[in-house]
Amino acid sequence: MTKRIGKQTVKLQNPPSILSFASIVGPKEGQGPLGVYFDQVLEDDMFGEKSWEKAECKMLQETIKLAIKKANLTVDDINYVLAGDLLNQIISSSFMAREIQIPYIGLFGACSTMAESLSLAAMLVDGGFADYVVAATSSHFSSAERQYRFPLELGTQRPLTSTWTVTGAGATILGDTSKGNGPYITYVTNGRVVDLGIKDQFNMGAAMAPAAADTIKAHFDDTGFKQSDYDLIISGDLGKIGVDLTLKLLEKVNLDISDRFTDSGLKIFDTEKQDTHAGASGCGCSAAVLNGYLIKEILKGKYNRVLFMSTGALLSPTSTLQGESIPGIAHAVTIQRTLD
Amino acid sequence: MTKRIGKQTVKLQNPPSILSFASIVGPKEGQGPLGVYFDQVLEDDMFGEKSWEKAECKMLQETIKLAIKKANLTVDDINYVLAGDLLNQIISSSFMAREIQIPYIGLFGACSTMAESLSLAAMLVDGGFADYVVAATSSHFSSAERQYRFPLELGTQRPLTSTWTVTGAGATILGDTSKGNGPYITYVTNGRVVDLGIKDQFNMGAAMAPAAADTIKAHFDDTGFKQSDYDLIISGDLGKIGVDLTLKLLEKVNLDISDRFTDSGLKIFDTEKQDTHAGASGCGCSAAVLNGYLIKEILKGKYNRVLFMSTGALLSPTSTLQGESIPGIAHAVTIQRTLD
Repeated sequence: MTKRIGKQTVKLQNPPSILSFASIVGPKEGQGPLGVYFDQVLEDDMFGEKSWEKAECKMLQETIKLAIKKANLTVDDINYVLAGDLLNQIISSSFMAREIQIPYIGLFGACSTMAESLSLAAMLVDGGFADYVVAATSSHFSSAERQYRFPLELGTQRPLTSTWTVTGAGATILGDTSKGNGPYITYVTNGRVVDLGIKDQFNMGAAMAPAAADTIKAHFDDTGFKQSDYDLIISGDLGKIGVDLTLKLLEKVNLDISDRFTDSGLKIFDTEKQDTHAGASGCGCSAAVLNGYLIKEILKGKYNRVLFMSTGALLSPTSTLQGESIPGIAHAVTIQRTLD
Repeated sequence: MTKRIGKQTVKLQNPPSILSFASIVGPKEGQGPLGVYFDQVLEDDMFGEKSWEKAECKMLQETIKLAIKKANLTVDDINYVLAGDLLNQIISSSFMAREIQIPYIGLFGACSTMAESLSLAAMLVDGGFADYVVAATSSHFSSAERQYRFPLELGTQRPLTSTWTVTGAGATILGDTSKGNGPYITYVTNGRVVDLGIKDQFNMGAAMAPAAADTIKAHFDDTGFKQSDYDLIISGDLGKIGVDLTLKLLEKVNLDISDRFTDSGLKIFDTEKQDTHAGASGCGCSAAVLNGYLIKEILKGKYNRVLFMSTGALLSPTSTLQGESIPGIAHAVTIQRTLD
């Protein structure tokens, strides 16, 4: 029996329940407006390790262990860990999976990874392929900055269109509908790669906005939902510029979601006081906001139905040097506090 | 209803059928023993592009288009393309998905990507989440060599333990059982990350062998199959050294598969004449061997039941520089000519 509705969306027949969730973030994120929501705030972004890459890996690992513990499960209970990150060859995730011995599906969706992993995890549980799945991702300001941009030691000035990569990790554990009390994942919309020709690697918001708008439109087209069916539509790391452009692109197709749309990249830092320019970005941005703030607020009843979307810029330093523009992608899942 | 059997394996309830498959390889691969099997052999490994990276992307793109055409489908019919490659931020796959407008799930499993993508594709089809899925991957000798090892212009000598990265791409299209006449994917075993401490990046076979042995053992433990239930067990790119070590590791757990075990990395080149030292490697190795040679031989009746496994070495140049050893992973799927 097909669970497909429309071109890009799946309606889950037995909506998986979120059994637990965890987040660990860096010091700067801890000082931001969502600081109190995270399970752990690092005092030092080296996390006792010898490199930022190893620190990122440890952060992801500890976040996943914590989520498993919070679900009263053990590593042996989990059937799959779906994870990815921004580093070349996703070493944070692969080395995490060396320590946490669970069958491992490595993903790369740049900053769309939280929603990418959640969407696959939800389908694996709904389809009867798994009892418990971990969906997780991480990013680290210092490991990302030196890989994608400049050595931090140079002290290079950042343009105002740039965003600040979040040091943070998030993990969600999904299980069968009957195994939990929600929130539930009810719909999954996977995105296509969209590229409107942006070449400025310091303006990721603009590069990702077309993909964000494309996935939101696809979701509404496929499901027939109205904007009012959602209490909140939240993107991953578009930042100020990306949010404005997404709303403009959606206006052109007669979708006005402005009264219920926000972005994780605008929530995690106080952009003015914390000097993060256009906002926050990185896989860890939407992961920490989801697994720190958002699910807690859904459980409290602040939001009943949320469209959670992560957005990724699919560039590499090599593709930029070879003159390529920056393609974007966005994946989205519907999270409901209760099943109607 | 759970489809899980044992700790790492899933038994597909409605085994997806392989509807079509395609492969494109470079000139050296075309001159190898399997040359006649591939759909297209490039005359020039630049494929009319300005860089090896762009050539790899084009090769992947053309392979997928060809597979879709051979299945008498159009891009619009396909629900997901699951793809990944060896390049940083998997740019071959992401830029492919910019041209081929299908919802895109980016994967990173290093050289395990063909089996990783096939395993997920099979579950998405079996679970009713997709009518048609493309599983695909690619690698390119020259883009991989300069990213992972040395600039080719240096003419650096390669140790005899090293393997030659295949220039090639492969794509498989899966659909519901009823949509084709096989071969079918019947079981899926996803691997854990295993690391026995190998640090030599010029001996990938040794680094991946423990993961290969782990997944083969898990598959037999989970399913209760005997070695004689398979006509062929074929790994991705272990090469001579990796094959020997895998067999030795399996002997230790009383599994002797030596009379039916081979490796894609030993089949695609004449290692002596073509001077490829320990054999072949790269995502494109198992992808081209599967989608060029293997499925054709299954259709001809040479093999009725095959365990197809791809193996990945999850290193990055950064992790190596930071003193890390090389973890490996292996994913496997059972391919049957007919349903018993």
